[in-house]
Amino acid sequence: MGEQLTASQWLGRFGDALASGEVDRVTGLFGDECYWRDLISMTWNIHTSEGREQVADMLAGIEPGAWPTDIVATSESEADGVHEAWFTFGNATFTGKGLVRVRDGLAWTLLTSAQSLKDHPEPSGTRRPRGAEHGVNVSTENWLDKRQQEVESFGVDAEPYVLVVGGGQGGIGLAARLKRLGVPTLVVDKYPRPGDQWRSRYHSLCLHDPVWYDHMPYLPFPDHWPVFTPKDKMGDWLESYTKVMELDYWSNSEATSATFDPETGAWTVHVTREGREVVLHPAQLVLATGMSGIANVPTLPGQDVFQGDQHHSSKHPGGARYAGKKVVVIGSNNSAHDICADLWQNGAEPTMLQRSSTHIVRSDSLMDQVLGPLYSEEAVASGIDHDTADLVFASIPYKILADFQRPAFDAIREQDKDFYAALEAAGFDLDFGDDDSGLFLKYLRRGSGYYIDIGASELVAKGAIRLVRGQVDHLAEHAVVLTDGTELEADAVVYATGYGSMNGWAARLISQDVADAVGKCWGLGSDTTKDPGPWQGELRNMWKPTRQDNLWFHGGNLHQSRHYSRYLAMQLKARMEGIDTPVYALAETHHLA
Amino acid sequence: MGEQLTASQWLGRFGDALASGEVDRVTGLFGDECYWRDLISMTWNIHTSEGREQVADMLAGIEPGAWPTDIVATSESEADGVHEAWFTFGNATFTGKGLVRVRDGLAWTLLTSAQSLKDHPEPSGTRRPRGAEHGVNVSTENWLDKRQQEVESFGVDAEPYVLVVGGGQGGIGLAARLKRLGVPTLVVDKYPRPGDQWRSRYHSLCLHDPVWYDHMPYLPFPDHWPVFTPKDKMGDWLESYTKVMELDYWSNSEATSATFDPETGAWTVHVTREGREVVLHPAQLVLATGMSGIANVPTLPGQDVFQGDQHHSSKHPGGARYAGKKVVVIGSNNSAHDICADLWQNGAEPTMLQRSSTHIVRSDSLMDQVLGPLYSEEAVASGIDHDTADLVFASIPYKILADFQRPAFDAIREQDKDFYAALEAAGFDLDFGDDDSGLFLKYLRRGSGYYIDIGASELVAKGAIRLVRGQVDHLAEHAVVLTDGTELEADAVVYATGYGSMNGWAARLISQDVADAVGKCWGLGSDTTKDPGPWQGELRNMWKPTRQDNLWFHGGNLHQSRHYSRYLAMQLKARMEGIDTPVYALAETHHLA
Repeated sequence: MGEQLTASQWLGRFGDALASGEVDRVTGLFGDECYWRDLISMTWNIHTSEGREQVADMLAGIEPGAWPTDIVATSESEADGVHEAWFTFGNATFTGKGLVRVRDGLAWTLLTSAQSLKDHPEPSGTRRPRGAEHGVNVSTENWLDKRQQEVESFGVDAEPYVLVVGGGQGGIGLAARLKRLGVPTLVVDKYPRPGDQWRSRYHSLCLHDPVWYDHMPYLPFPDHWPVFTPKDKMGDWLESYTKVMELDYWSNSEATSATFDPETGAWTVHVTREGREVVLHPAQLVLATGMSGIANVPTLPGQDVFQGDQHHSSKHPGGARYAGKKVVVIGSNNSAHDICADLWQNGAEPTMLQRSSTHIVRSDSLMDQVLGPLYSEEAVASGIDHDTADLVFASIPYKILADFQRPAFDAIREQDKDFYAALEAAGFDLDFGDDDSGLFLKYLRRGSGYYIDIGASELVAKGAIRLVRGQVDHLAEHAVVLTDGTELEADAVVYATGYGSMNGWAARLISQDVADAVGKCWGLGSDTTKDPGPWQGELRNMWKPTRQDNLWFHGGNLHQSRHYSRYLAMQLKARMEGIDTPVYALAETHHLA
Repeated sequence: MGEQLTASQWLGRFGDALASGEVDRVTGLFGDECYWRDLISMTWNIHTSEGREQVADMLAGIEPGAWPTDIVATSESEADGVHEAWFTFGNATFTGKGLVRVRDGLAWTLLTSAQSLKDHPEPSGTRRPRGAEHGVNVSTENWLDKRQQEVESFGVDAEPYVLVVGGGQGGIGLAARLKRLGVPTLVVDKYPRPGDQWRSRYHSLCLHDPVWYDHMPYLPFPDHWPVFTPKDKMGDWLESYTKVMELDYWSNSEATSATFDPETGAWTVHVTREGREVVLHPAQLVLATGMSGIANVPTLPGQDVFQGDQHHSSKHPGGARYAGKKVVVIGSNNSAHDICADLWQNGAEPTMLQRSSTHIVRSDSLMDQVLGPLYSEEAVASGIDHDTADLVFASIPYKILADFQRPAFDAIREQDKDFYAALEAAGFDLDFGDDDSGLFLKYLRRGSGYYIDIGASELVAKGAIRLVRGQVDHLAEHAVVLTDGTELEADAVVYATGYGSMNGWAARLISQDVADAVGKCWGLGSDTTKDPGPWQGELRNMWKPTRQDNLWFHGGNLHQSRHYSRYLAMQLKARMEGIDTPVYALAETHHLA
């Protein structure tokens, strides 16, 4: 047992040790098991140093001016022997916010996050613009005149500094942050209107995550907003958001190719805008085309023979047109469940083909046990707004996140045991992840393998959705035939078979070489199913520098897009302003996709 | 000197006295000078009882179940011998919030405000809808299907309970509150798009009030919003607001006539929608057509002779088309100043004709000295959000509001004395209101007689805007001729001559009889210029029952529309739900317009 210190006492010693400039003195304040996660404030990277040795390497490897100074504890608490404190800090470049957990007098987890570029704070609050020019020497152009000029000249006379490909919630949330930071940013999206990314999905879709988790940056939903936003309502919100945030957003526009010139430091991007070719030269290119962008459609013998409709889940038109028809849905994750339920409600006869075990968690249980402490009405009432919740969540190192999550899922298994028993009785192959850590880890490791139950599981349990386990051998004229010879009659086949890695977008838009240089996106290197090692400590390539200069990946769920867009926006702003941005520990590429 | 009590001690005694049911025991807790302002919670009216006798009358005149119970002090403070406390309370119908000021142990001012109908709370926070129907027995209609049906059937198969005529910020803010309360509400507006009420105004217009004062209900502006919102930006915000709040809003629609049938308790309202006649039968009719709705255009000899453009300020197209021209602007209030400045900026030669003294206050000074304590970044930082600020403001009885305001305007006169001296040197006839109480009282009493300076005064002072004082005798072919014989050369004339009383809308839409029965809207009966007595204690006819059953007036600036729409919405909801709503002290009609 070490000395008993409160977290603020620890922070005092930490500040002194940092001020001494001696790495050893700093690392001496960390426990044998320790993590220092930095969100760009010191490393210009999203990076977790694990263990004293890596902490020492990090401190030695960054500029002295990047070390935190002016550490001030702002609140603290204690539970089960873990002392926790929030603090503010600064360094040469940033003001920041941090959270430390201290055990036995030594740091266990430490988060340092950049909150604001010192020389380029956001123009909000007391720094907001006046809007009106008062006085005598005012322009005769009003806000609308200027805004219209901006809209008309952008991409024509004026180049964006950042081009964001993909205008879903990720792209527009990032664009909103860049707008506030004064970074000329253009979003291009293939759909006719902002929000169509949601509107175009299947008819019954609502967000599976609850409202407290889903706010966009700067403009939270009003407090009557439904818990689970219906897709078209989400689309309308995003469209209004794009408008009131004055984002430069080209609809009906697809980026068709991009090449980076290291000499000029600029991309050449060809965009087809409303059918016309436009060439742009942004300095920075952000792919925000989503984790669910490039459909994985398996190649199966007999696909040319099959007589009915066949399409990927992302193209599913809704169940209404399949009333009275037999539909085989290949897959057993979120989309497969939602589509089967929608088919059943519309009088079709769905068969779900489960090919591998699947994690199921009831939406209500997920809200109560997992999200509730941070993202719920109760959390809001106890002072935890979503920005605070995001930092608390970010403060838990990925290495030990499974340990934090497992007890909640153990509780869910116990609480919902009848639910799970009924599913197993129906033949459903359940799992809770390779190490029983549940949904969020599955999402981080592989982005697949689960269903958040909003009702379809009951349909599976009672046989309204027919469940079959097996592997497809081939398609026949009117059937899906399994390797064990089972023939599943089918008027239509839906491939609910997921999506490829985001770096597929880089291959498609830039080149296979660049995609390979960057490597796989997403996943932690946990050496679990579909997440090969080695251990990364962070999500691969997300919101941070990649092995291709000036190329960035942005995405994730609404919570992640909201939170990490903050750091991505500051990284881009800093580069525009010519601030020195030495990246510490740029990740290696281990897997191509 | 009475006994020294803290405000929470006073509240304890107040609660005991109310529980006793004895009027005398309650009034014994009030000072010789005392005010009890009630925002519908006890009176189903917006009413101030002034003095112990009126307080006694009120307590005796309302139902016993309307008396406050469960009084709980939530915070208190003291300054200059005045003890102040916030409290919550309930009664048979409402939960409420109040603010009391105690001097020498006795109540000086008391506010009771309804916050929520006990049996019909707003579906927000923990009561928000789920959005998705989870489970097996779900409808095949999604949110969009239902919303589209609602939009298509409204006013066709389904009658609105409330018809709001006028879709500016007032109408849509009220409609948003009614939507949350589940009151079927239709807004009709003559313009093509929500927000056009602002977009159609003169080119240089920005809000004259700062952003902290201007939030709409439920969805505050994000914190980078400019201090003074440009008109087109405001228009876009209102349009997005209408969309995301799912308001039922008919554009290109004008109500042409309305008749109330006391037998059926319903209105028959003819609406021309996109050129087609529609007949509606709402139970409640709200005129939200604005204080600046019916233009006051003076009838002057020679208007038929004058050769140039002549129009009311509300029709002013902007100065660009008058470059090099002489324009006489009749009037010296807000619009006159803004239009003269705009003309000058566009190279025209404006002459401002001042017909009577005018109150001028610099926008910055107004923000610092008057609005700042309640509506500013500093107020927000000290925990005073705009809802709290609205209640603080509402807690000051109109009778003594002038005394609260005068010191701030005295300070402004001193601080800006050079500014005022320069204006007077240029011949400008200044005032600070009949009793030197400044801008807000002028606004409440007469809604006119002032300019919030955002730069035009400097143009007047230095002669760039030519100032002439006098009265118009007649117009000649190319001149405005004054009663003293002065001829003002004019290529165009702008009548910046203000607006008529809102009950002009009732005359136009319903009948002169109804307009006369209802009488003048706005004004306090202060017996000052343009606000004839007798004293009313509240704004005439605004947001409360009128002498015409089921007819309501809504309007005012953004602050007032936001705050008082809360009480108007609850009054309408209660009537829809069949709750008994005995109105205490329905105001007399003293002035027709």
